[in-house]
This record gives sequence, structure tokens and C-alpha cells, in this order.
Amino acid sequence: MPSHEIERLVDLLARLPGLGPRSARRAALHLIKRKAALMEPLAAAMTAAAAALRSCHECGNVDTTDPCAVCADLRREATALCVVEDVADLWALERTGAFRGRYHVLGGTLSALDGVGPDDLRIAALVERVGRLGIAEVILATNATVAGQTTAHYITDRLAPTGVAVSRLAHGVPLGGELDWLDDGTLTAALSARRRV
Amino acid sequence: MPSHEIERLVDLLARLPGLGPRSARRAALHLIKRKAALMEPLAAAMTAAAAALRSCHECGNVDTTDPCAVCADLRREATALCVVEDVADLWALERTGAFRGRYHVLGGTLSALDGVGPDDLRIAALVERVGRLGIAEVILATNATVAGQTTAHYITDRLAPTGVAVSRLAHGVPLGGELDWLDDGTLTAALSARRRV
Repeated sequence: MPSHEIERLVDLLARLPGLGPRSARRAALHLIKRKAALMEPLAAAMTAAAAALRSCHECGNVDTTDPCAVCADLRREATALCVVEDVADLWALERTGAFRGRYHVLGGTLSALDGVGPDDLRIAALVERVGRLGIAEVILATNATVAGQTTAHYITDRLAPTGVAVSRLAHGVPLGGELDWLDDGTLTAALSARRRV
Repeated sequence: MPSHEIERLVDLLARLPGLGPRSARRAALHLIKRKAALMEPLAAAMTAAAAALRSCHECGNVDTTDPCAVCADLRREATALCVVEDVADLWALERTGAFRGRYHVLGGTLSALDGVGPDDLRIAALVERVGRLGIAEVILATNATVAGQTTAHYITDRLAPTGVAVSRLAHGVPLGGELDWLDDGTLTAALSARRRV
């Protein structure tokens, strides 16, 4: 029943992560009710983003410039490289302000099931960068999932010949985390990595 | 850290229902990665929808024409009017194909807390339509929530002087529903409205 314009909008919205057919309909209706306040600005923001954004050929970050602002920033530590699965992880780490080196975005994780092999990720480029830039430490910040950890293992092996120091994010109890709600794996990791106070 | 274009996109996406700041970031990244396949078509679909869609002055439905396709369809039953809170509810009922009359979209529910009174909903317009169109039956299809039922009660009172027959959707066990998962109110309603087989 909804007109062609609405159906098209709902179909496209439903392809966003986190929106199913039902929530896409709600979102479409929300947009239609807020034409001037939301739908037109959002359409303009998307058009602007599509035109302005590009992938950084160095690290795989998304920015308006190539190389991206992080790669181009000469004040950043030149010898530390943090390897992340996705640009969203890079953003998350940048929000903390705790890392002052540069990044390397893999573009996913190894997955035999989904047919993602080493050549589908930016792993060769990582090895090349480590050599070319004289990197001293590679910090593996892949997710603490099976796929993320498998990928981290593989990268560690691939980097072994370069002699670069490879480290990984610590596992443990998240700040504010209640032990009762944590999975056994995290608790075990937190216990075995315990520190003297 | 993300560029201005990305921040603007994330901010606007976060205003969609069902997307928080975190899922808006994921959605933005998803769009950025699929510029040609998704972001540009979605921007175009929004621009097209914003230009084409209008509110039906008769029933409050959203369509490319005013009156909308439902109101303009002369094959529909002219004497039955189904009252819904929102356009999404109208779509849901249309998907069933079970109702062949016309609709009246209220635009919300009465809410003392949110300061929504009868004049903020299209209730006067409903009473006017019932008289003008010679409606024989008004089906109240507001949600089975406190606000929806309160609004239905209020509308029943407002329609009493017109003498029109007013009915409400039946309550009961949803198809495929497991009793164990249903709330007490639904079970009570299903019991008291039981039918001989």
C-alpha cells in the first residue's frame, strides 16, 4: 500500500545494520514526519559524505583526505602501529586518546566460513608498512572474539620474520563490571593476569 | 577524530528511532563502505520522498497524492472508518488486506504527561468526517496500551452524540502465541472473550 517512494526508502533503510524491516518502516515514517528537520538534512549529509570521504591508502581509515589526518599528523608516534579490524574500532580507540601512534585497519577478520583469507585483509600491506616505516611495536587490537584472536595469531606469525615487537590488548574485568555478570573466560583471564597492589 | 562529514552523518542517523549513538556510528560506517550501493541511493530516495510525499488532508495518511490512494479509491467501503494512532498502524492493517473501509489517523494518543490533549490529535476532524461521510461504523484500532485504550474511551464518548456504531479490535492470544509467554492481562481477556467451538 505505501507508495513507491516509501517502499524504496524502507527497503534501503532496512539494509542498515541494526534495522530490520519493521524498524526500517518506523524510521521511514519518522523521517517522513520530519522532512525539513531530519530527512532533507540527512540526505544532504549522505550526499556530502559520499562525495568527500575516501579510504586512506596507508592505514585504511576513512577521512576527507588521503593520507588521513592520523597518518598525516607528524606529532604522532612514528614507531607504534595499532592493528584494528574495522574503522569503528579505530574511532573507539581515538576517543580514548590513550594511543598516540598510528593505525592499520585490516578490514575484517579471517573466516574460513565466510571465505575470508589473508589476501582479503590488509595483512601484506601491514607487513610492508612495518618494514618501510621502521615500526618498533605492533599492538594487536582485534576483537576478543574467536575470529579476532585467530586473526591476531596469524598476524603474529606473519610478523615474526620482521622481528618487530608484537603486543595485544589486556583481557580483564571491564571498569564498572560486576563479576557476577562476566563470562567465565573473562574471569579466568582477569585472575591469571592479576597484579599485586 | 572522525571528520566533520562523518560526525554530521552520525548525529543525524542517531536521531532515527532504534539507533543510538553507537549503532548510528556502525550505520554510518556501513554507509561509507557502500557509497555507490547504498549511501547514494538512500540519499536519493530521501530527497525523492521528501519532495513527493504529503499528508492526506482527509485521513492523515502519507502518500504522493492528496487525498491519498485509500481515500481516493472508490471501490473501498464508504461507511466504515478505522481509527489508528499512526500511519505505521494504517500500513500494518493494509498489509493484512482484511479491512476494506477507509482510515483516520489520529497522530498519537492522549497523554497528560506529554501534554497531548484532544486538540492535538485529529479527533474533531474524525467527528466531522463521521457526520459528513455518513459513516455507519467506526472501528477503534488504537494500540492495546494504557494510552491507546484511554484515547479509545475518549473517542467513544466524543462519538456518542453522532449515534455511529463504535467497535474495537478483539483482544486475545496472538496466533502462534504461547500461553506461558503471555501477560496476565492478555490471558484474562482471551479467557473472558472465549468462544464455543
